Amino acid sequence: MKLASLMHGRDGRLVVVSKDLTRATDAFPVVPTLQAALDDWDRYAPRLADLAESLEHGSLPSFRFHEHDCASPLPRAGQWLDASAYVNHVELVRKARSAEMPDSFWTDPLMYQGGSDVTLAPREAVRARSEEHGIDFEAEIAVVTDDVPMGVNPDAALRHIRLVMLVNDVSLRNLTAKELAKGFGFVQSKPSSAFSPVAVTPDELGEAWRGGKLHLPVLTQLNGAPFGRPDAGVDMTFDFGTLIAHAARTRRLSAGTIIGSGTVSNRDADGGPGRPIAEGGLGYACIAEQRMVEIIRTGAPVTPFLRFGDSFRIEMKDAEGRSIFGAIEQEALPHAE
Amino acid sequence: MKLASLMHGRDGRLVVVSKDLTRATDAFPVVPTLQAALDDWDRYAPRLADLAESLEHGSLPSFRFHEHDCASPLPRAGQWLDASAYVNHVELVRKARSAEMPDSFWTDPLMYQGGSDVTLAPREAVRARSEEHGIDFEAEIAVVTDDVPMGVNPDAALRHIRLVMLVNDVSLRNLTAKELAKGFGFVQSKPSSAFSPVAVTPDELGEAWRGGKLHLPVLTQLNGAPFGRPDAGVDMTFDFGTLIAHAARTRRLSAGTIIGSGTVSNRDADGGPGRPIAEGGLGYACIAEQRMVEIIRTGAPVTPFLRFGDSFRIEMKDAEGRSIFGAIEQEALPHAE
Repeated sequence: MKLASLMHGRDGRLVVVSKDLTRATDAFPVVPTLQAALDDWDRYAPRLADLAESLEHGSLPSFRFHEHDCASPLPRAGQWLDASAYVNHVELVRKARSAEMPDSFWTDPLMYQGGSDVTLAPREAVRARSEEHGIDFEAEIAVVTDDVPMGVNPDAALRHIRLVMLVNDVSLRNLTAKELAKGFGFVQSKPSSAFSPVAVTPDELGEAWRGGKLHLPVLTQLNGAPFGRPDAGVDMTFDFGTLIAHAARTRRLSAGTIIGSGTVSNRDADGGPGRPIAEGGLGYACIAEQRMVEIIRTGAPVTPFLRFGDSFRIEMKDAEGRSIFGAIEQEALPHAE
Repeated sequence: MKLASLMHGRDGRLVVVSKDLTRATDAFPVVPTLQAALDDWDRYAPRLADLAESLEHGSLPSFRFHEHDCASPLPRAGQWLDASAYVNHVELVRKARSAEMPDSFWTDPLMYQGGSDVTLAPREAVRARSEEHGIDFEAEIAVVTDDVPMGVNPDAALRHIRLVMLVNDVSLRNLTAKELAKGFGFVQSKPSSAFSPVAVTPDELGEAWRGGKLHLPVLTQLNGAPFGRPDAGVDMTFDFGTLIAHAARTRRLSAGTIIGSGTVSNRDADGGPGRPIAEGGLGYACIAEQRMVEIIRTGAPVTPFLRFGDSFRIEMKDAEGRSIFGAIEQEALPHAE
């Protein structure tokens, strides 16, 4: 089933969305918000699935679904933990600044605690106080869990995944180095993230969802031009079960926890850094990676970070070319002080 | 006014508590949960204050207030950001491991994003999977904000503080170094935190609340013996207005955001590291600091981290010796796998 939260108050208004994203029906008769549904998933999910089935059959009242009306599926989420599971991406970052990457990064996941008290709607502008902050998008896969016990193992963790969605983990690249040097993670350099209009249950993904990974390309566009299409199932060093188990090693996780994959990143066919779309490569899921490849190849970055007025789009399509989650489509704009 | 959330469902049941913490009355006729009150504080606060006044006058039904019945004031909070505002503490940590502390730490606050999807009730055990993780408590002051705009300045930020409380920022010391080396902050080494039974509006603190700091000693006990009484108003390098402004530099903060001070820590009268209570000093707000002082003085730590069965207590008293927030009182216990 596919779920979305229409903009309404702080927690949105839950709707069930048709598989083709054209129609929706109110979930209110079952449960008013997605957080409430996750709080008691075993009780509500079957009833939401009934609504979804009736919606497909056209046997209950429905209305036109507009992605523009959507908030994040969880407009304020209880927890947002983001990993860096495509270690290829991390290695490139290090290589671009001539730093060694510890071997442990291949076996011990990188993960940070992000803020999710505020999320951006999928069509909401990314507001920044200055272009000099180095505004970037990061296209990622994210999963939403129910309650996860402390010490869960990776296999059992997979069974706690209730929903899958896309995320734009907005990053202010020119603030990152200073924060990372302090060791305390990201506060200022990772402002509010945006999520796809629609979250889907893993069964909606069919064969593309296997081994705790989503085996489909993440499509990004920058100012209307194709920017990347790396496959989220390739070069993902840690699957979502491993990531959830990492997060829950010393504490339990509450229903509505969102775990991100980190920027999707594929190596080139020869094992080296991926090439840009313009050169026939798979491109990238963030501007920073394109810049790193430019640095490695030519000594200096060429592609600028986002300027005010620049826009980007993040989407994923199924084997038939239909949008699965709807699109994150945002413009970078100045914050009005 | 003083507010508490009795254990009830995931978000607690909001009650107004008498100044002396002996009686309470249900806030349900006004608003059912503290999060809902913070979501629309200007609307609900005056009506909660009316309840508080009637409670003091004995002019409405009330019941005996038991701290044991309390969840955290915000049982699952939208956001928990914890600073290290007592830079003295950070300097000691570095000194104990013979590392230089960057001068910038005196002007640029250290702050990390913590998890608050799960909080521990004030009398709930701290469950850990192994004593070898180095279980420690950290006694801190925390404030709760309403909606804070991006780019707020420190003075304006102070006016967004709606509540003040105590927090035990549970730390797993032996997991910290490995996580900090990765630069991504704390995920496994900072499990769920516990908050005081009662949160109070700043006006309840009278003259002790000034300049964005709480000028009273934080009282800690370890296994029933006094362990520390450093003053939270002394050696706090960054006041809460500065900390909120730091958090909101690149993003807005949603109502219910909790900002922590970091471990309270006072220098000794001679400017050096504080002395233990047993030697007539003010002692410490966490075990790690006592161990650091032991290392600096003797070359090796003497006080062990918490063993299963050990207990500690965190409290604050007003000028008349009355508990302001109630006590956090927890025991370290093994996690049942």
